[in-house]
Amino acid sequence: MQKIQLSHGGGGKETNDLIHDIFYRQFSNNILTKAEDAAVLHVGPDIAFTTDSFTVTPIFFNGGNIGKLSIVGTINDLAMMGAKPLFLSTAFIIEEGFEFEKLEAIVKSMAEETLFSGAKIVCGDTKVAPKGSLDNIFINTAGIGKIIKHGVSCHNIEPGNTIIVSGDIGRHGATILMEREGIDLKSTLKSDCANLWPAVSALAESGIKINALRDATRGGLAAVLNEWADASNIGIVINEKSVPISDEVNGVCELLGFEPYDFANEGTFMIAVKNADAHHCIDILKRFEFCKYAAIIGNAVAEHQGKVILRSEWGTSRFLEPPKGELLPRIC
Amino acid sequence: MQKIQLSHGGGGKETNDLIHDIFYRQFSNNILTKAEDAAVLHVGPDIAFTTDSFTVTPIFFNGGNIGKLSIVGTINDLAMMGAKPLFLSTAFIIEEGFEFEKLEAIVKSMAEETLFSGAKIVCGDTKVAPKGSLDNIFINTAGIGKIIKHGVSCHNIEPGNTIIVSGDIGRHGATILMEREGIDLKSTLKSDCANLWPAVSALAESGIKINALRDATRGGLAAVLNEWADASNIGIVINEKSVPISDEVNGVCELLGFEPYDFANEGTFMIAVKNADAHHCIDILKRFEFCKYAAIIGNAVAEHQGKVILRSEWGTSRFLEPPKGELLPRIC
Repeated sequence: MQKIQLSHGGGGKETNDLIHDIFYRQFSNNILTKAEDAAVLHVGPDIAFTTDSFTVTPIFFNGGNIGKLSIVGTINDLAMMGAKPLFLSTAFIIEEGFEFEKLEAIVKSMAEETLFSGAKIVCGDTKVAPKGSLDNIFINTAGIGKIIKHGVSCHNIEPGNTIIVSGDIGRHGATILMEREGIDLKSTLKSDCANLWPAVSALAESGIKINALRDATRGGLAAVLNEWADASNIGIVINEKSVPISDEVNGVCELLGFEPYDFANEGTFMIAVKNADAHHCIDILKRFEFCKYAAIIGNAVAEHQGKVILRSEWGTSRFLEPPKGELLPRIC
Repeated sequence: MQKIQLSHGGGGKETNDLIHDIFYRQFSNNILTKAEDAAVLHVGPDIAFTTDSFTVTPIFFNGGNIGKLSIVGTINDLAMMGAKPLFLSTAFIIEEGFEFEKLEAIVKSMAEETLFSGAKIVCGDTKVAPKGSLDNIFINTAGIGKIIKHGVSCHNIEPGNTIIVSGDIGRHGATILMEREGIDLKSTLKSDCANLWPAVSALAESGIKINALRDATRGGLAAVLNEWADASNIGIVINEKSVPISDEVNGVCELLGFEPYDFANEGTFMIAVKNADAHHCIDILKRFEFCKYAAIIGNAVAEHQGKVILRSEWGTSRFLEPPKGELLPRIC
């Protein structure tokens, strides 16, 4: 079995071979192969720019792998700014001895996901570090997108806005946790890892005014909602019963003592829109398979500024606190 | 002594505190602090885009640290494409238990180097991985620059072009190697780690036509010259005696059996220009302290296509091969 050697990161012949045999072959496009120290791009005046490093473990999980996640994660960050993903960079740090076969599988799913998104990988970097300096592989992706929907911001939520979630929550966090703990529930649970741009693009084209958008990654719903409440100086009231959560995710949470609201998602996002647009918004989302459980889960209010309130079906209320402490390291 | 905890990477309160207390404080600018999932930028139509991950060890070395290197490395990649560095992203992967004090020192030197360059850090990411998952800290920077000098490419070197190096070679590689091996030569040897944009900018403003530019990082001069010979389908003849190499670098090479041509540089670049412009080019470079040893070292020829020939002062010749094998892992 062929393995990554330190020489693959030396900047000489073996590095060139690796870049040509694996990266160029999978990511092939004119801009990438012509790139020297940097790619040359032609872009519109207003762009969005983002970066994310990925250290998830296990590197292969039900519903994705670190490669797919690294593309989807950065594309989604652009999408959440109302920006069409155009160009991506990828930077690999690989542990000496990592199997070629695994690297190829990861790179292949990055290529597929990038192709699906319509974006291009235009520049990259490869480092190999001696065995023991890192655990398997870390990937960084940065992305450039063209802003097509302006005014989307966590600061723009108004009292009366409806809060929508695009799907059932907590699947990425629950999947990683189960796999890491070696728990096999014989369930169909898999990560929600998905490119959100098609749904965001459809919302943008519909002409609905979107106040805020955010994918509920690390820190889950609890992190996003608290950030929104804080940034827009509003309160947010969530009807607990309306939040879509699968039986599997609820099961993992009960078993291990977690809150589904704190669990990471990698293909689920929150939207704040005017109340009058909420049902139209849900209709658009439901055209997409990965948004089939899209739901209205609450609304912004003028009171309780900076706070998120969970209202149970029995009428009781509690604050949904922003996540604190360890949660799950290396979830993304 | 305060240390990085896993909770600093959880995406909740502690992550926010870290971002505000360290990153925003040092990198403070309007775009960064307003950035949500991505920064919003206004750029010209033609941009350069690049990425690099940094895993150098030791993280602090004579002449720099992983933070300074991460800024300079990406800025130099833009500069080498004739692009003025405008916007940078930074993504940190930090080992649990890493000392705050060290992180602050690293971030501070990133901020200083960015300020000096005129660029801005506009978005970022922070991951914390459990102790043992990586060695100390890895940093990725991606960068966007505005192309102000077009037509600079490793494919554009012509027979007759003069090959210039901006300073004495091999200091970064030699410094890292010495520190790693615990060799103390009581010397003044330090890494050449430096932002090259001021010198490139002056060359661009001079109106000199630049055929190719490249900083001689991983793989050193040997890698760049061989890449150039290959890409432009030319031969390159280098006069060994003309290549500026300090006594310290020569000493380290003799002691440990390395070639200075293979050693990484982080603030030294190669230029290919018309013969008639060579002396003007040297005059411009020498205005800069970090280019005081700039020298004409050889020229491109129509023969020996794809090969680099080192000519000794005694008239003998040998091929300078592209570096192969392990070299020095984690040099950058």
